[in-house]
Amino acid sequence: MTAIEPQPALATTSLPIEYDKRLMLFSGRANPELGAKIADKLGVDLGTVTLKTFSNGEVYCRFEESIRGADVFIIQPTCANPATGVSANDALMELLFMIDAAVGASAHRVIAVTPWFGYSRQDKKSAPREPISARLVARMIEAAGADRVLTMDLHAGQIQGFFRKPVDHMTALFMLTQYFVDLGLEDLVVVAPDAGRVKLNKKFASKIGAELAILDKERPAQQVAEIGYVIGDVRGKTAIIVDDMIDTAGTLCAAGQTVIDAGARAVYAAATHPVLSGAAYENLRAAAFEQIVVTDTIPLRAGAPDNVRVLSCAELLTDSIRRIFTNDSVSEVFGGENQLF
Amino acid sequence: MTAIEPQPALATTSLPIEYDKRLMLFSGRANPELGAKIADKLGVDLGTVTLKTFSNGEVYCRFEESIRGADVFIIQPTCANPATGVSANDALMELLFMIDAAVGASAHRVIAVTPWFGYSRQDKKSAPREPISARLVARMIEAAGADRVLTMDLHAGQIQGFFRKPVDHMTALFMLTQYFVDLGLEDLVVVAPDAGRVKLNKKFASKIGAELAILDKERPAQQVAEIGYVIGDVRGKTAIIVDDMIDTAGTLCAAGQTVIDAGARAVYAAATHPVLSGAAYENLRAAAFEQIVVTDTIPLRAGAPDNVRVLSCAELLTDSIRRIFTNDSVSEVFGGENQLF
Amino acid sequence: MTAIEPQPALATTSLPIEYDKRLMLFSGRANPELGAKIADKLGVDLGTVTLKTFSNGEVYCRFEESIRGADVFIIQPTCANPATGVSANDALMELLFMIDAAVGASAHRVIAVTPWFGYSRQDKKSAPREPISARLVARMIEAAGADRVLTMDLHAGQIQGFFRKPVDHMTALFMLTQYFVDLGLEDLVVVAPDAGRVKLNKKFASKIGAELAILDKERPAQQVAEIGYVIGDVRGKTAIIVDDMIDTAGTLCAAGQTVIDAGARAVYAAATHPVLSGAAYENLRAAAFEQIVVTDTIPLRAGAPDNVRVLSCAELLTDSIRRIFTNDSVSEVFGGENQLF
Amino acid sequence: MTAIEPQPALATTSLPIEYDKRLMLFSGRANPELGAKIADKLGVDLGTVTLKTFSNGEVYCRFEESIRGADVFIIQPTCANPATGVSANDALMELLFMIDAAVGASAHRVIAVTPWFGYSRQDKKSAPREPISARLVARMIEAAGADRVLTMDLHAGQIQGFFRKPVDHMTALFMLTQYFVDLGLEDLVVVAPDAGRVKLNKKFASKIGAELAILDKERPAQQVAEIGYVIGDVRGKTAIIVDDMIDTAGTLCAAGQTVIDAGARAVYAAATHPVLSGAAYENLRAAAFEQIVVTDTIPLRAGAPDNVRVLSCAELLTDSIRRIFTNDSVSEVFGGENQLF
Amino acid sequence: MTAIEPQPALATTSLPIEYDKRLMLFSGRANPELGAKIADKLGVDLGTVTLKTFSNGEVYCRFEESIRGADVFIIQPTCANPATGVSANDALMELLFMIDAAVGASAHRVIAVTPWFGYSRQDKKSAPREPISARLVARMIEAAGADRVLTMDLHAGQIQGFFRKPVDHMTALFMLTQYFVDLGLEDLVVVAPDAGRVKLNKKFASKIGAELAILDKERPAQQVAEIGYVIGDVRGKTAIIVDDMIDTAGTLCAAGQTVIDAGARAVYAAATHPVLSGAAYENLRAAAFEQIVVTDTIPLRAGAPDNVRVLSCAELLTDSIRRIFTNDSVSEVFGGENQLF
Amino acid sequence: MTAIEPQPALATTSLPIEYDKRLMLFSGRANPELGAKIADKLGVDLGTVTLKTFSNGEVYCRFEESIRGADVFIIQPTCANPATGVSANDALMELLFMIDAAVGASAHRVIAVTPWFGYSRQDKKSAPREPISARLVARMIEAAGADRVLTMDLHAGQIQGFFRKPVDHMTALFMLTQYFVDLGLEDLVVVAPDAGRVKLNKKFASKIGAELAILDKERPAQQVAEIGYVIGDVRGKTAIIVDDMIDTAGTLCAAGQTVIDAGARAVYAAATHPVLSGAAYENLRAAAFEQIVVTDTIPLRAGAPDNVRVLSCAELLTDSIRRIFTNDSVSEVFGGENQLF
Repeated sequence: MTAIEPQPALATTSLPIEYDKRLMLFSGRANPELGAKIADKLGVDLGTVTLKTFSNGEVYCRFEESIRGADVFIIQPTCANPATGVSANDALMELLFMIDAAVGASAHRVIAVTPWFGYSRQDKKSAPREPISARLVARMIEAAGADRVLTMDLHAGQIQGFFRKPVDHMTALFMLTQYFVDLGLEDLVVVAPDAGRVKLNKKFASKIGAELAILDKERPAQQVAEIGYVIGDVRGKTAIIVDDMIDTAGTLCAAGQTVIDAGARAVYAAATHPVLSGAAYENLRAAAFEQIVVTDTIPLRAGAPDNVRVLSCAELLTDSIRRIFTNDSVSEVFGGENQLF
Repeated sequence: MTAIEPQPALATTSLPIEYDKRLMLFSGRANPELGAKIADKLGVDLGTVTLKTFSNGEVYCRFEESIRGADVFIIQPTCANPATGVSANDALMELLFMIDAAVGASAHRVIAVTPWFGYSRQDKKSAPREPISARLVARMIEAAGADRVLTMDLHAGQIQGFFRKPVDHMTALFMLTQYFVDLGLEDLVVVAPDAGRVKLNKKFASKIGAELAILDKERPAQQVAEIGYVIGDVRGKTAIIVDDMIDTAGTLCAAGQTVIDAGARAVYAAATHPVLSGAAYENLRAAAFEQIVVTDTIPLRAGAPDNVRVLSCAELLTDSIRRIFTNDSVSEVFGGENQLF
Repeated sequence: MTAIEPQPALATTSLPIEYDKRLMLFSGRANPELGAKIADKLGVDLGTVTLKTFSNGEVYCRFEESIRGADVFIIQPTCANPATGVSANDALMELLFMIDAAVGASAHRVIAVTPWFGYSRQDKKSAPREPISARLVARMIEAAGADRVLTMDLHAGQIQGFFRKPVDHMTALFMLTQYFVDLGLEDLVVVAPDAGRVKLNKKFASKIGAELAILDKERPAQQVAEIGYVIGDVRGKTAIIVDDMIDTAGTLCAAGQTVIDAGARAVYAAATHPVLSGAAYENLRAAAFEQIVVTDTIPLRAGAPDNVRVLSCAELLTDSIRRIFTNDSVSEVFGGENQLF
Repeated sequence: MTAIEPQPALATTSLPIEYDKRLMLFSGRANPELGAKIADKLGVDLGTVTLKTFSNGEVYCRFEESIRGADVFIIQPTCANPATGVSANDALMELLFMIDAAVGASAHRVIAVTPWFGYSRQDKKSAPREPISARLVARMIEAAGADRVLTMDLHAGQIQGFFRKPVDHMTALFMLTQYFVDLGLEDLVVVAPDAGRVKLNKKFASKIGAELAILDKERPAQQVAEIGYVIGDVRGKTAIIVDDMIDTAGTLCAAGQTVIDAGARAVYAAATHPVLSGAAYENLRAAAFEQIVVTDTIPLRAGAPDNVRVLSCAELLTDSIRRIFTNDSVSEVFGGENQLF
Repeated sequence: MTAIEPQPALATTSLPIEYDKRLMLFSGRANPELGAKIADKLGVDLGTVTLKTFSNGEVYCRFEESIRGADVFIIQPTCANPATGVSANDALMELLFMIDAAVGASAHRVIAVTPWFGYSRQDKKSAPREPISARLVARMIEAAGADRVLTMDLHAGQIQGFFRKPVDHMTALFMLTQYFVDLGLEDLVVVAPDAGRVKLNKKFASKIGAELAILDKERPAQQVAEIGYVIGDVRGKTAIIVDDMIDTAGTLCAAGQTVIDAGARAVYAAATHPVLSGAAYENLRAAAFEQIVVTDTIPLRAGAPDNVRVLSCAELLTDSIRRIFTNDSVSEVFGGENQLF
Repeated sequence: MTAIEPQPALATTSLPIEYDKRLMLFSGRANPELGAKIADKLGVDLGTVTLKTFSNGEVYCRFEESIRGADVFIIQPTCANPATGVSANDALMELLFMIDAAVGASAHRVIAVTPWFGYSRQDKKSAPREPISARLVARMIEAAGADRVLTMDLHAGQIQGFFRKPVDHMTALFMLTQYFVDLGLEDLVVVAPDAGRVKLNKKFASKIGAELAILDKERPAQQVAEIGYVIGDVRGKTAIIVDDMIDTAGTLCAAGQTVIDAGARAVYAAATHPVLSGAAYENLRAAAFEQIVVTDTIPLRAGAPDNVRVLSCAELLTDSIRRIFTNDSVSEVFGGENQLF
């Protein structure tokens, strides 16, 4: 390989400078604990940024240190966080304003780190005259000026296509399957909670060497669920129901009950994103799950049921952030298998 | 004037149709009362639209009747409305999703009617590394697909320039000045609450034939205020303090007190937009105003002080909506003086 | 309801004209038979357009009649057509050039009617450093200047979100299910050929009141397939395997065999799009299907097996085209259930 | 042909109106005489618009009547006009501001009528690190908001491709050739003044049935010229030198002399655009041309040589404007031959 | 802090190079003196660029040295310069073509340095059917390809929001106030010349510890002025009237007279931008100002009155240019107070 | 010249890294031999990329190594290559998908190296209602995400203006003229095959010191030709006919015959791009050319006539690629004369 010589000594009309890149990390108010963990693993302090909500409900941000020329990573899943007083929409708007301010403050690149990407279930028109909300959110993030997005376990892989800028798509699947492998359970069956989640459950089943079963039902209205019957065999087995997210847990808990009713010995739940809104805690407490295993893309409200296990995705995100910054391969983190959904 | 003949009989390769336009009116949850008033004045029913907030905080909308080919006007000031449970950011996101859904449902034109345009105070960088939030909101409304915007008394006229699509800019000034003319007060002086509002107060003073005075102070921090002294003469006069909006009313109430301290006989307040957030009601109750005169661009929370007078801008908006639809001049409504700020 | 008076008599500075809309229909070379059927049902002649391929492989088009001010519908599924000598990429490029020419020739609106939307399987990154080809095709159609798109049974509903312009999404599902209802078969089971198609098969099963089963396998490489076992019960039943498209039919034929091996009495296949490329005809002839039921979104090459049944989607498309032109509801055609995938 | 029924009686949620289009015509200060001629032929008055230049050199415009919903045609070749005090750049900026104002004032469509399109010679990079000025001007016209452009005899036909919006491209060729046919000259030869204009001269020659000759020279620097020798035969013939524009006339006059020196009996010049800047009048007076035939796309300064003949293109433009408005074919005006350069 | 290791030795499929940045500085013809001063302070030569105006009024530019990969700063306030023969619109067009050429010549970044931003007073619609000219100019600068803009004392801070690219906004306020502090004047009062400039004058007054007064008047027509009375007390004091620019000086001189008539002992004027067009010199000579203090954002025509003092902003701009290049904080130059208007 | 100090030691909130650039080179299937030659000259291996065509005609690509942060050069003239089975449209689509994949895989810059730019003859509307195909192709390349384009001898220089991104335009002219100079032929005349190619032939003639003649004819239909007579003198001379491309060679061969008929002693042909489609080989074999000299921008099909000489442009492209990567001047390669057409 021949080395290329850089350009010859510059004329007096130009002023040269050696160019260094630098990485800066900021967190919004949606999940500051996750931001702090990532900063810790990267070996930097979180950058200082003023974030507040005026009494009229408008959010405000200001970077308190110069970010000119830096690669600015903004950690902000677009979820509510009761601890910091932001709703899901507040978190989204805060992210957008932080991006706008970072661009206006001459950051070199602005990277939105949104491990949980809200509105991801509204990714197509399920009924006439609905918005495609996930697309609009993607467009807004780009319109605000983000150069790229780092996210995890999108509800549908096609959502990546709603962006024009590069998207790095992580998955918590290996983390979750490894957890179950380590549990050492036997006679496992993975049960897809509905027809739309069969593909994910099949992948989960393959990774842990389990069989697959499927629940058949009509989801009569959004966020309410009615469970029918099991296609496949769960009798006497330990079942794991896998989903990308758990919201009110209504569907999930009904699914758990159906599986038990069909003769399963025990049932676990696994999901990347613990939205856990509304009556989720009550529903999960009333249900029969041995464990509900999730990650920390979304912070848990206080008072979570004891059998909720939270695995941290901070290591995964840190690794990806570092690779984005140094231009190393991100897909390598997953052996190329991060495009799962 | 020669009449132009339409094109001759079309060949068999084309299918003609007479083209009618139609107007449809929908309201979000930010100010449904205003929407209802406008619908009533226009002589139509408000269109049916499903609007809800999921327990995770995401908002959802769906138009329940065909809007294909219609001019769709969406009434949604981007303010909170406790009565319908939406925050300011919820209202903004709801507006954006309604626009996206209307475009996707093949509306002919989508017009955002946002008489109160939130985030309008963040219309420039007042400190380094802040966002220009009003610009981002304008860009989002356009990115969602709005064809035009109808708004009222923007905090700065330049905000119109943040849009690329046409903006119709109404003013409530004539309504407010007429109200004071009708009150028949004498020895009036209009007092600008700070250096940034002198121009507006001067216009108000001109319209009602009053003199002008100005309060000088440093606004030490946003939403908190300290009032200094009066430039000009208020002694023995009835003062009116005019602003585009009243938020927490902290500045306004301190201004009122300064004016009284400087010898004014009585003091009134006038503003287009009653944001009235946080301690506004307490502040206003403790203050010395004879009346606080506002419009209904923003709905009042329950429990407003008795001396708050609300004038309706529904007539004004109805007139403009009708003219936008029929392509008549809008500026004519104001005799060409709607570009006031 | 009050009627709105149109604007008063115009001044001498303006020249009025009554405005008529007209619809014109053109077909590219991908599926001229379908274009002719639609024209016939609409009651117009297909517009005249010159289409050719130079010996160097570049395609050329020219509209041979004025289309100024017309709503131009271009019928062009992006598939190969051996009869007219266009490959899939030729068809796509031809569509793009027709759109560009129509915009440049001052059409009022240009509507791409692509009942089969090629590259739709490449709708996300399944492996690192792949393109999202379906998104790029959508972007190209919009960059060429199409105002809207009319398509049918997209591989994933999210592909609609790759467009920013309105998409009308038809489905052949009702046509296909009605066909099977009319056949009067008994003891039916609908069998999803893999985990990713369960949702579609479930909908099909619901419509015809059948049970659901699923095939489990790893698809080891694209367009080659290995079939494993059946989840659910097919013994003694008549099975229908449903997919959105049949390409080489390798997966489908293996699936058919697996179902037979598992004890099914007979097996049918149903799909909207008969891509039927490569060894498809050989594969289907060697397989055990009673019938393979498809639509005419894609023209069949000569020599199709006798048990291939083609239903025409021309009526469906004609109805939608007419409604798009007259601004009537399109979703009404399907009772609001056209958002199936 | 079946007539399509318009949509049924509208529900109470929508307000219908019959839709009329109207055409309005305005002229900037570059060529108001041309604007007046077109208005006269159309049978309308020119719309009233305030146009002025502040003492600091900034231009200002304001439409003095409502243009809401109208098709607004703005007549403004981007040339200097000493009579109204605008330079070429003033004319261009005035056009841009008029477009911006028309869009902001809710015109239905804004059409830039620029029969002379300035900067058209800078249509590619002739030397490194030059701008492609014609492209930038095209982009600016579109960025200002023009919906379409009507122009004439562009320096290169490819300039149409610098626009994304539709361009209607007129030609004065037929007008000019007809003029020479009517002169009844004999033994004609058309002489291309340089290698880059051979195509145009060949077309001119074909139309009038003359032979073609070519001048060969190096153009040593822009706007200065040196003429070499004639390729082809001009001896004893009447020569016509054709170009798209005449600027300083330096090249043209030298060409005329070369043709005379080569034995031509007489020499004429013909060009669409009389830029005639700098020493053009002196050059033309000193030259041997029988006539210099041009059109009125650009107004002549006072004091033009007597042998300059000006044909008016107003009829041509009026016809095209009317056809654009009524959606009739524009290419038909020229029998499809308006794409000449 | 952990150091990040750069990526490991690259494979033979890639060729590495160390990357240096370089800065190059060019000046248009609007203010070459300012360009030369900045180059001198930066320690570079101004880059060589050919700039000319053809006799037809079109401007032309060409960079005469390679700028590939460089950060190209183009110094060009958009003002007239009689010394170099450019009008305000020429200067603007020259800037746009220089940007276009720089982008086409593969500059790494192109920065428009326009300390005076023309058309800035037309920043909103003051009357119906006006353009928002400042927005259009901003859009054109971005459409030409500028990556960022460096400007000074915009007429309204909101103009920053007309850009989507980052804007660095300088202020000459500190330079001007320091000048007056150094003069050692006593009993100072700062007098706002009209209601729209109170905020600026208040800031000026705060910086020099003076009181504030305001002139009240109706500005009856643009560029002509009538002065009314003083709000506040100027009797026996030394007054300073501050504005962002002085154009014809009509308003300013009338204001000066009113202040003197109201009993002021002496009056000074201060402004950042000396447009000084039309009768400005005559007006200023006839007026009573001790000094008129301005900066060199705009070059003075010959023959300026003796009491005009010009402070140079070259140091300020040089400092900012260097910081933009090296990615140091720009707001730090002003202690974060550069967002003044 | 003062050296500029880089920014001081960074705070603990930021992580620095030294930044290296790297170049990677990939080839599509249109001309892999050319790609291999360039790689060889650059001293790198061609990057590994999977490229295939499915049996349904859709193309697929995947980069098999990480390209994150690299400058990715993609060698792909948009021509057919029978050896690899791609048609012209396949090659274009493959280029677009490779660009899309490279952007999505986080390349730093993506450079399309398309020495032959297909559809370049359709660069304007030659007839009404045609597309401007070359513009659409340019737009598609940019829409796919290319940062710049490297091309050679475009059919018209204005095509550069169809791009908004920088274009580096090479020419093979010097290579071709040098070849003829080396042949040592005498009594040369360069003969333009038609009026549209005179400029190119004139440049060729100047470079080799030959005279110029022109063929006059009407091209009656595309790709078919009829040759008339020669303007200028070819008797007893050796003629060279120059064109930018040779497609079916119909026009060229007729031109060769006309030149021979007019008394030329011998005739050669020269062109940059050997499209050589359809009956080109037969035509050339039947014609009287001594040699047909072309370059390798397009690979020859098997069976080319013996008198076709192919010069390689690999050195030229390699030099430009290296200079683009290192930010050295590209125009310098040609002494600034690469803007020839």
